[in-house]
Amino acid sequence: MSTDPYGLRPGEVAVELPQEFDAGLYFIGRIRTPWTTREACPRNARESDAVCTIEVDARYAAALKEVETCSHLLVLYWMDKARRDLVLQAPRHYDTQRGTFALRSPVRLNPIATSVVRLVRVDGTRLSVVGLDCLDSTPLLDIKPYFASTDAVPAATVGWHAAGKT
Amino acid sequence: MSTDPYGLRPGEVAVELPQEFDAGLYFIGRIRTPWTTREACPRNARESDAVCTIEVDARYAAALKEVETCSHLLVLYWMDKARRDLVLQAPRHYDTQRGTFALRSPVRLNPIATSVVRLVRVDGTRLSVVGLDCLDSTPLLDIKPYFASTDAVPAATVGWHAAGKT
Repeated sequence: MSTDPYGLRPGEVAVELPQEFDAGLYFIGRIRTPWTTREACPRNARESDAVCTIEVDARYAAALKEVETCSHLLVLYWMDKARRDLVLQAPRHYDTQRGTFALRSPVRLNPIATSVVRLVRVDGTRLSVVGLDCLDSTPLLDIKPYFASTDAVPAATVGWHAAGKT
Repeated sequence: MSTDPYGLRPGEVAVELPQEFDAGLYFIGRIRTPWTTREACPRNARESDAVCTIEVDARYAAALKEVETCSHLLVLYWMDKARRDLVLQAPRHYDTQRGTFALRSPVRLNPIATSVVRLVRVDGTRLSVVGLDCLDSTPLLDIKPYFASTDAVPAATVGWHAAGKT
C-alpha cells in the first residue's frame, strides 16, 4: 500500500496535464483475453501462448481485406485503467525511478500500447492472435501489417535493462 | 486528379464515423524533419538517413530519464492531414484495393503512426534520431523503449507485398 495520498510511490513524479485534449480517438473494437485483473496479466506478451481474440466492430469489417496474408500484426490499444500524469515512475519490480519514455508501463501521457502479435486465424471480424498481455475487453485503436524490413531491429538494446530480461 | 466529388479513387470505400470520440490525446511535442510536403517525404523510413529531431515539451522533460540508454525507440505520432473514414484504399503505387488494416497508409480510423528509430543523441528535451519519414512539425504522442525481445520479428511476412519491397 502506498502511503502517499496521491497514490505515488517514493521517487514517482506527476505533472499537471493540459486542460484540453488535442485530438480524439475512436474505439474500433475490443480485445478478448483470459485476463480480468491486472495481476493476472502476463508480465509481457512473450510470457504467454494464449490465443486472444481481436473483435473488430462490424462497421469497419471491410478494413480487414488482405489482413489474412500477414503473418504478424502491430496492434494498438488503449490502456485506460491507469493515471496519465506520471513522468518519473518507480515500477515495483525494478529498484529505481525511470522516465515514462524509458518504460513500457501502461502509465503514460497517452496510454497507447503497441504489441506485435502472430496472426493465427481470421473469422469474419474476429482475429485469433498470439502475443497480447492486456486485460479482457481492452479497447482496440488500430491494426497494422508488421513489416520486418522497417519494424524488426533484432540488435536493438535497452541499456538500463539487464541482458536477457524483458 | 480524382473525379469523385468526395475525393475517393476508384475502389475506395468510406464509412460513416461515430458521432463522438471515445478518448482524448495530448500532443506532447513536435517532430522536426526536412520534409514540408507529402510528396517530399520518403516512401518509408528506411529510405532516408536524415537525422530528424524530436522536440519534447518542457513540461515532460523528466519523462526522458534513461532514454539515452536505448539504442532504438518506438515513436508514436499523429498523422492529422488525411481523412479518417476509409476502410478500403487504392494506393497509387499499388494496383488493387486493400483494407486499411492491411496498409501502413496515414489514412486510418485513428491516424497514429509508429516508427522504429535509431537514437543518435539526447540534448535536454531534443532527441536526434534516424528513421522517420513524416512531415515537419508532426505532433508527437509517445516515445517507448524498443525491446528486441518482444518487438523484433525478423521472419514476419506480408503476403500481399512483393518480396523484398517495402
